[in-house]
Amino acid sequence: GVLGSGDFARSLAIRLVCSGFKVVVGSCNPKRKANLFPAAAEVTFQAEAAKKADVIFVAVFREHYSTLCELADVLVGKILVDVSNNTEINHHKESNAEYLASLFPACTVVKGFNVVSAWTLQSGARDGNKQVLICSNNQEAKRTVAEIAQIMGFTPVDMGCMSSACEIENIPLRLLPAWKIPTFLALGLFLCFFTYNLIRQVIHPYIREQKNKLYKIPIEVVNTTLPCVSYVMLSLVYLPGVLAACSQLYYGTKYRRFPDWLDQWLQHRKQIGLLSFFCAALHAVYSLCLPMRRSHRYLLIETAVKQAVEKKMTIWVEEEVWRMEIYISVGIIALGLLSLLAITSLPSIANSLNWREFSFIQ
Amino acid sequence: GVLGSGDFARSLAIRLVCSGFKVVVGSCNPKRKANLFPAAAEVTFQAEAAKKADVIFVAVFREHYSTLCELADVLVGKILVDVSNNTEINHHKESNAEYLASLFPACTVVKGFNVVSAWTLQSGARDGNKQVLICSNNQEAKRTVAEIAQIMGFTPVDMGCMSSACEIENIPLRLLPAWKIPTFLALGLFLCFFTYNLIRQVIHPYIREQKNKLYKIPIEVVNTTLPCVSYVMLSLVYLPGVLAACSQLYYGTKYRRFPDWLDQWLQHRKQIGLLSFFCAALHAVYSLCLPMRRSHRYLLIETAVKQAVEKKMTIWVEEEVWRMEIYISVGIIALGLLSLLAITSLPSIANSLNWREFSFIQ
Amino acid sequence: GVLGSGDFARSLAIRLVCSGFKVVVGSCNPKRKANLFPAAAEVTFQAEAAKKADVIFVAVFREHYSTLCELADVLVGKILVDVSNNTEINHHKESNAEYLASLFPACTVVKGFNVVSAWTLQSGARDGNKQVLICSNNQEAKRTVAEIAQIMGFTPVDMGCMSSACEIENIPLRLLPAWKIPTFLALGLFLCFFTYNLIRQVIHPYIREQKNKLYKIPIEVVNTTLPCVSYVMLSLVYLPGVLAACSQLYYGTKYRRFPDWLDQWLQHRKQIGLLSFFCAALHAVYSLCLPMRRSHRYLLIETAVKQAVEKKMTIWVEEEVWRMEIYISVGIIALGLLSLLAITSLPSIANSLNWREFSFIQ
Repeated sequence: GVLGSGDFARSLAIRLVCSGFKVVVGSCNPKRKANLFPAAAEVTFQAEAAKKADVIFVAVFREHYSTLCELADVLVGKILVDVSNNTEINHHKESNAEYLASLFPACTVVKGFNVVSAWTLQSGARDGNKQVLICSNNQEAKRTVAEIAQIMGFTPVDMGCMSSACEIENIPLRLLPAWKIPTFLALGLFLCFFTYNLIRQVIHPYIREQKNKLYKIPIEVVNTTLPCVSYVMLSLVYLPGVLAACSQLYYGTKYRRFPDWLDQWLQHRKQIGLLSFFCAALHAVYSLCLPMRRSHRYLLIETAVKQAVEKKMTIWVEEEVWRMEIYISVGIIALGLLSLLAITSLPSIANSLNWREFSFIQ
Repeated sequence: GVLGSGDFARSLAIRLVCSGFKVVVGSCNPKRKANLFPAAAEVTFQAEAAKKADVIFVAVFREHYSTLCELADVLVGKILVDVSNNTEINHHKESNAEYLASLFPACTVVKGFNVVSAWTLQSGARDGNKQVLICSNNQEAKRTVAEIAQIMGFTPVDMGCMSSACEIENIPLRLLPAWKIPTFLALGLFLCFFTYNLIRQVIHPYIREQKNKLYKIPIEVVNTTLPCVSYVMLSLVYLPGVLAACSQLYYGTKYRRFPDWLDQWLQHRKQIGLLSFFCAALHAVYSLCLPMRRSHRYLLIETAVKQAVEKKMTIWVEEEVWRMEIYISVGIIALGLLSLLAITSLPSIANSLNWREFSFIQ
Repeated sequence: GVLGSGDFARSLAIRLVCSGFKVVVGSCNPKRKANLFPAAAEVTFQAEAAKKADVIFVAVFREHYSTLCELADVLVGKILVDVSNNTEINHHKESNAEYLASLFPACTVVKGFNVVSAWTLQSGARDGNKQVLICSNNQEAKRTVAEIAQIMGFTPVDMGCMSSACEIENIPLRLLPAWKIPTFLALGLFLCFFTYNLIRQVIHPYIREQKNKLYKIPIEVVNTTLPCVSYVMLSLVYLPGVLAACSQLYYGTKYRRFPDWLDQWLQHRKQIGLLSFFCAALHAVYSLCLPMRRSHRYLLIETAVKQAVEKKMTIWVEEEVWRMEIYISVGIIALGLLSLLAITSLPSIANSLNWREFSFIQ
């Protein structure tokens, strides 16, 4: 059974019908709404639908839960699936599912399907996340809903008892929260270093020697900026650990909470490290592209022509050769090691390592 | 207990013995077959084996299930594990496990282990997929079989009730079905563009100016072909979404099924996108290799020598310099963004994103 | 309840209090230890704590389990969670959890939380492995502990019955055991080939022609060494399969155990293959860096100047051009194919392939 006639209710009904279930839809105005639902689904009044179904999806806004109270008698002993979402994180004191459970103490309430969009429901779980997080205080009801999710083509994930409902309801509202601060940090650092390098490599030679070096902006200036950003970000990964150790030594205990800013910083280390790796990888690609450029080619030919005209045969500078060889070779090794770190941060690799192995690689 | 004496039965018996289980094998001809099984496994007649064991693996072809009917009395109340596979997808109307359950209504049938090869069984789950998909209508029986799988070194995955059996039986027959169409599409596009570029860069100059440019085939022609394929594939990822939206606008409803060809197309978008990324990455590597070639080196030296002999000092063309700088710089950024998309299509990353984050990145 | 007052007991108490549980800590000397625990946790005598709590974490060394025997009466019917670790793999004949269960037959023993470090417990599961492996012979107790782990922010993983305890206890002691032999093998091969190439490219020309080619060591010598290592490693991946097939043909049976050295070798193939891929990828990066070097630039200009002075206009060698084009083009294709292999060895990708698809790609 599905209570409600909104977008989500319709998508749910379509998917249930496609998966071979018998579906009853309860609506306030069944006649007008019937044509919105697939023909195989029976659309009737709410009380009628509630009577016929054993598992009932409550696809109604939290604000209208109280309007369902008149169905309380019919719903006794049935499984109610709360699929609702909020518009803000931690909007209400108790989660929607717990609120529903308090309104219908004679029903078994299961939280689930809220992490799935109406679009995914309708078209089937094609790509992206196929998991449906489920929680309930009743094992039997949880298992029933998990099997429905399985048959609908999703991967049910048991999230334990009702107290997880709040967490589950917050998930769809999340938009990469852990990446916000590190991304702005990286952009800020990039802007600073880019301005500095622009002045040093383009504006300064133009003012002093009237040389037009504007062509350096898209690649050379960016390429000298990226490793600076990468280095600073990498140091920001290891600095908070040192600060935390100092704070522990100062207070003489491991069991004191760190100040909030340090705690936040410690929590963002993984993202800062990955952005540092991303900058380092981009720097590698940019550097590899340098000899492909026309400007490189022209400068090379111009030097050769100049040397040939002046009949100078030796231009080998041992020191510069060695500097470059060592620079490139250390760069490759550093990138290789950073790649290892980046690979171990993939969830499926991290889950196959114990903490001893993880710390060893870190 | 294991019923049957084929390859799979033997591998199963070996693995069970190695995992510390007491194994009884039921065979039609126990004397002749005994030497095929490990010494620790007792090989006896089928009825005898069925009597002794609580959990019985039915390692017999579906066609011979009916020959087991004479054991029906002995098997009452026992757990039968159906490990069979078909030779074709959806070969029979009902799955093998459901057929077995209909023959032995007094037994509890569990589907499982069919996704594992005889070779993996024997050698232990070393690499590749360690999952054993299990389904049954009986929770207790499912749990027993899951624990046996766990002890044998596999990862049991609960696939819900018996109706999933058909799906589980189809899995081992699958051979990357979602990749077939996109791969042929990519190969077709590659051939077309390769022919065009071959004519344009090699055959045309040969006929018109008698210049031998055959050396361009392995790298330069391939390198100009790859980005064309990549672009067309990328546009094919976004085109069906536009067509679907048009179809919805035309019919005025979101709840009408798309035509089959459009539906197929929408389902293959992820694979088409990954192949587009693969071509783009190959194009990047080919481009980076260009300055490494002898031909590049010779052309450079020849130009320099020509310029030196003619005493021409300036060969700088500002427009060409800028074109190349911008081309490379945009290419790197595009590849970086495509890499992000490709990373989020890894199953373990996709499962850690909610659909809002997934759509944001897409 | 938590029995014990060590580092792990304290971290456990802190985490439980933070997750909203009511915690009772049992210590031999509650007065002296009370200030080590968070204020919200009640610190009392062991018997008192055991009486008050339903789920009791035994954070005590295995050697001191017997000192808890005096609490046997108070503990009847309670759930004991064994969180202990050993210092050596397979140190004792039976696992700690099984030993605890034998001491307290009237309690339900659950193994769990030992794979989590005290540090992770305290700071919350931020990165790395969030899984808590749990096993027990009692389903109900296992579920209770799993829900506690869930609320504490970990991902409980059901590892079946008590016989898995030994395996779970060995996990935290593991330090990439499968990588040890392949890594030393790769290092050994690298040293051999590096010495050979050093003699051939640097020492030999110095002795014979007094030419200083030392600058070649960091990049050119390493770059000619890496593909040799990669090739030998790749052949070592496929060789044991051939040897195994030969052994099967020789003995005329598939069901004979391979000798130990061959078995070990077969088990390390995945790691050897990944190291081979790592060397091949490094070789690609090193090769791409070649034209970036100063030495490359100087040699190019010197050649051009020499040609210009001698007025030699043609330096094109068709054979060398072709050799390089084919070499680069085959190298890119080989690297692309190896990348595919490497990607399918990611756990989350491998789990989405059936063995037919996996073998097809291999």
